[in-house]
Amino acid sequence: MSKLIDDLTSALSAIPLIDPHSHIEPLSPVSRSLDDILGYHYYTELAHSAGMSQAPLGKDVSPRERVRAIVQHMDRYDNTAQYAWFLDIAKSFLGFTGDKITAADADPLFDKAEKVFSQPDWEKQVFQKTNLEAIFLTNEFDDPLEGFDTKRYIPCLRTDSLVFRFKEPEVKQRLAKATGIDAGDLPTLKKAIRVLFEKFTAKGAKACAISLPPDFAPTKDGSSIFWMLAEYCREFKLPFDLMIGVNRKVYRNGVYQGQDLFDQRTSLIQYQELFNAFPEVTFPISMLTSVQNQELVSYSWIFPNVVPNGHWWYSNVPAYITPDLRARLQAVPKTKLVGYYSDAYKLEFVLPKFGMYRRVLATVLAEEFVETKRLTETGAVALGKRLLRDNVREIFKV
Amino acid sequence: MSKLIDDLTSALSAIPLIDPHSHIEPLSPVSRSLDDILGYHYYTELAHSAGMSQAPLGKDVSPRERVRAIVQHMDRYDNTAQYAWFLDIAKSFLGFTGDKITAADADPLFDKAEKVFSQPDWEKQVFQKTNLEAIFLTNEFDDPLEGFDTKRYIPCLRTDSLVFRFKEPEVKQRLAKATGIDAGDLPTLKKAIRVLFEKFTAKGAKACAISLPPDFAPTKDGSSIFWMLAEYCREFKLPFDLMIGVNRKVYRNGVYQGQDLFDQRTSLIQYQELFNAFPEVTFPISMLTSVQNQELVSYSWIFPNVVPNGHWWYSNVPAYITPDLRARLQAVPKTKLVGYYSDAYKLEFVLPKFGMYRRVLATVLAEEFVETKRLTETGAVALGKRLLRDNVREIFKV
Amino acid sequence: MSKLIDDLTSALSAIPLIDPHSHIEPLSPVSRSLDDILGYHYYTELAHSAGMSQAPLGKDVSPRERVRAIVQHMDRYDNTAQYAWFLDIAKSFLGFTGDKITAADADPLFDKAEKVFSQPDWEKQVFQKTNLEAIFLTNEFDDPLEGFDTKRYIPCLRTDSLVFRFKEPEVKQRLAKATGIDAGDLPTLKKAIRVLFEKFTAKGAKACAISLPPDFAPTKDGSSIFWMLAEYCREFKLPFDLMIGVNRKVYRNGVYQGQDLFDQRTSLIQYQELFNAFPEVTFPISMLTSVQNQELVSYSWIFPNVVPNGHWWYSNVPAYITPDLRARLQAVPKTKLVGYYSDAYKLEFVLPKFGMYRRVLATVLAEEFVETKRLTETGAVALGKRLLRDNVREIFKV
Repeated sequence: MSKLIDDLTSALSAIPLIDPHSHIEPLSPVSRSLDDILGYHYYTELAHSAGMSQAPLGKDVSPRERVRAIVQHMDRYDNTAQYAWFLDIAKSFLGFTGDKITAADADPLFDKAEKVFSQPDWEKQVFQKTNLEAIFLTNEFDDPLEGFDTKRYIPCLRTDSLVFRFKEPEVKQRLAKATGIDAGDLPTLKKAIRVLFEKFTAKGAKACAISLPPDFAPTKDGSSIFWMLAEYCREFKLPFDLMIGVNRKVYRNGVYQGQDLFDQRTSLIQYQELFNAFPEVTFPISMLTSVQNQELVSYSWIFPNVVPNGHWWYSNVPAYITPDLRARLQAVPKTKLVGYYSDAYKLEFVLPKFGMYRRVLATVLAEEFVETKRLTETGAVALGKRLLRDNVREIFKV
Repeated sequence: MSKLIDDLTSALSAIPLIDPHSHIEPLSPVSRSLDDILGYHYYTELAHSAGMSQAPLGKDVSPRERVRAIVQHMDRYDNTAQYAWFLDIAKSFLGFTGDKITAADADPLFDKAEKVFSQPDWEKQVFQKTNLEAIFLTNEFDDPLEGFDTKRYIPCLRTDSLVFRFKEPEVKQRLAKATGIDAGDLPTLKKAIRVLFEKFTAKGAKACAISLPPDFAPTKDGSSIFWMLAEYCREFKLPFDLMIGVNRKVYRNGVYQGQDLFDQRTSLIQYQELFNAFPEVTFPISMLTSVQNQELVSYSWIFPNVVPNGHWWYSNVPAYITPDLRARLQAVPKTKLVGYYSDAYKLEFVLPKFGMYRRVLATVLAEEFVETKRLTETGAVALGKRLLRDNVREIFKV
Repeated sequence: MSKLIDDLTSALSAIPLIDPHSHIEPLSPVSRSLDDILGYHYYTELAHSAGMSQAPLGKDVSPRERVRAIVQHMDRYDNTAQYAWFLDIAKSFLGFTGDKITAADADPLFDKAEKVFSQPDWEKQVFQKTNLEAIFLTNEFDDPLEGFDTKRYIPCLRTDSLVFRFKEPEVKQRLAKATGIDAGDLPTLKKAIRVLFEKFTAKGAKACAISLPPDFAPTKDGSSIFWMLAEYCREFKLPFDLMIGVNRKVYRNGVYQGQDLFDQRTSLIQYQELFNAFPEVTFPISMLTSVQNQELVSYSWIFPNVVPNGHWWYSNVPAYITPDLRARLQAVPKTKLVGYYSDAYKLEFVLPKFGMYRRVLATVLAEEFVETKRLTETGAVALGKRLLRDNVREIFKV
């Protein structure tokens, strides 16, 4: 069994990845120092949660000092999946050969990272080592989308600020600047948003996306910007990624990006009007918690336009991915399963995160399909390829 | 371990089944064509969800054409548990010997089914191959309950229309016709429903049943038809099957019987008045989702009159049955566990569905009881028999 | 694998326990008869749920008769985890050598228990056999806390009656008697509660604790006794154990302590004000259900002052402990995980309950850390020791 899982993992690793959601900045996609890696909110929040003060996160603290502090606290959270990602990064990219990262490793790793990351072809190396073909971005509506290869870095129109912060003057001004339209009333706003869709699709955007609080319940309403976005997704034939369930700023003194939590009491029933009103729009859906996975499975089983999308944030550990994936594979048509996305801020994270996912995927494929003789090993790899690559290409028309 | 699971599965397969919930029509219990099999809503909804239009489901389309369309789409959902049921049907009943059903198999399977299903003793053959002794029906209140052996096809009074559609003239008229009482006010309604209970129990009915939306919360209320039904269950000593959690017509353009979904935010606390008021009535309870299983386990652990009943609908895949069953076996008295029901519309489905369940049951028995040395293999099979047969007999007094 | 789990279990068993939550009465900590064991609500409620009337639980029934009745019903619930605890007690403490406890064993076990439990050093023997070093109590606010070794039996101020029943004259009178202050208004109440904290901490109390209904949502409010308790926890540096989710007296005719259930629809978002307002107070949190575990994991991942505490009540079976523990180990800093508490009423229960937990812990450590080569066996045992002992010492300052 464990050899089978190894073999499947290895075969899945040979499949070139298209990562359907990330926060990569295409003009500085890779890390420049270890601080870029360990500044990722997962590490700052785990270190803080385990007792680190916020002092090392201050602007005046040198990157080396900050890295030391975060690494120093690792012996409090070296049990976590996130620590395992970092260990994988250290081994795969920085030549680390130990079993465990300790406080003493902070400086040598920092120094090594400086050398490695400053290689002129580092970005290319990361793409190669990761077997990465293309990766989706998260672009603010006024992102110029210039200076990068949009076949490799695929634009995606992120719309949280339009939907939730449109009344703020700063957002209105940015919209005016980006579109040349002063959106004072609904008709002009509609025109302005059309300009955004035209611009984004002209630049090769393949999705519109938004994250939503647990109590959000869209309804058909002439003055709803969210509904307007869905209408444009229909017109411009873009999938609309919904990331459902986050409450912002719950822990008010949390670290940057480490303040958000949730209320598990949410339901996809809140979206029934939307799913019924837009049969032509595909909604790739991410839920914040595993508790909500069965609703996602059932809604995807029934609605042609609802598809499960990866394993988001607080569910992005094997303990939740494994049962969630198992249920999706047993109950949702395989052509609708978008397996995984990295959600990465720097390219170096795509490798360990997809590595973790492929291991889980291989395990579930082995247990559910190969051991039960429903599929050969070759058949199981083909099913894995659907989740890792084929469906991303077909659903997002990449 | 895998040999142990095989052995337990095989021993469990020797136990004659009494299936405590189905939608079999006793006057046409078996399929007449492959269209009867693949017209089951699981296949039409999965095919539709995976991209099939509703055109092949039209009345004017020939059964053969419809079967072709649904089989053609199987390569989009051949990962699912439902596909595995069909493959099992094809192998067990239609002599199919391949590993996978493809578009090319539609016509040969259709032809084979025509021959096989038209055998005069087909119904008897299905009972034998399935090792089926008796099966519960789902009867509308005005079902004449005639023309079939009620020892084999056990009547069950389904009451959804009485509780949720009583104000519709059509329902009132049907009730008047069935009982001879024009239920214009509460006292006459009460009399009419008594007639139904008398008629059903005289015909050997062994349960009253209803499916309920997530927000249903019964209270003692003189004008509540639901409460009245519970009172008659007490008087006529019938278990009252509650199937909790379904919202009807969520996907309004879904296929026939493929429109229902749910809101996971429901709680058995809504039934506390009922469970307290009717200690003499047994409530076999099915929850729509695995999320609700722990409530069901805990309420069954505390309330003598609450018993877990099978694995319903969106929870009827191994990914959910396995953890749900494991928790029930660890925390609820074994004499209260009704293991499984088929929910079948045609008898041919009892075999693959119980086959799937027995495999899960054998796995959990192996892991939890045999491997831990809590039970011998013989003891584990006896425990399995409780869930598969003994409890159905005792709880429903069959 | 199974040898590895055995080895880990064995190594974990060598770690002296500090049990951070129980209902032990320090003046009669051990059982005097088998009735003290089987009178534990788990057995009375399972026997009752499985069909035993309440008659054997009456005051007039002799202990021997009651034990007979409960044991007689065991063949209806010998599948449960709770039965396995009893079997372990019979084997570990009463020399039972059979595989299964049947009605015929009631009298011999009762007689044997009388002899064993009456040994003058029985309490000491139980501590030794259990490898128990110290155990937390649950003390009413007016408990004199005298006559026992508070290093071994650690006081804990339980505050349910203060928060939920303060308006009852009996509670007010008890408070007046315990503190010498007649708490007629808010300022005097505040003074009275300060006296309790002074007295409890002087006696070595290491925690304040409370159980809360699912809809409880504390807010900063000058008249809130709950908020006042949190303020005193801050001042007196006591962790505040929150046991979240129980509805009292749901099954109104249930056995003593077997009437409580819950509404799964609760969220830690209800506690956001509290967690934000008291960064200096550690909140060890127990949730009633596994459904709520992911919220607990995520809140513990983000809030430095939120820590997961054991596996409470309806979640205290391997089917729920296993997935809950797995998620905690993958996503929460290891220094924040309080692994388990016995919740025992008599010392004899600490052994089987921790035995069950250690087996689950060993399994998860084996699968997640040793098999994946993330830790050696020694490293895995050290991680287990964190959960079993080190964190209790550090978090509760024992």
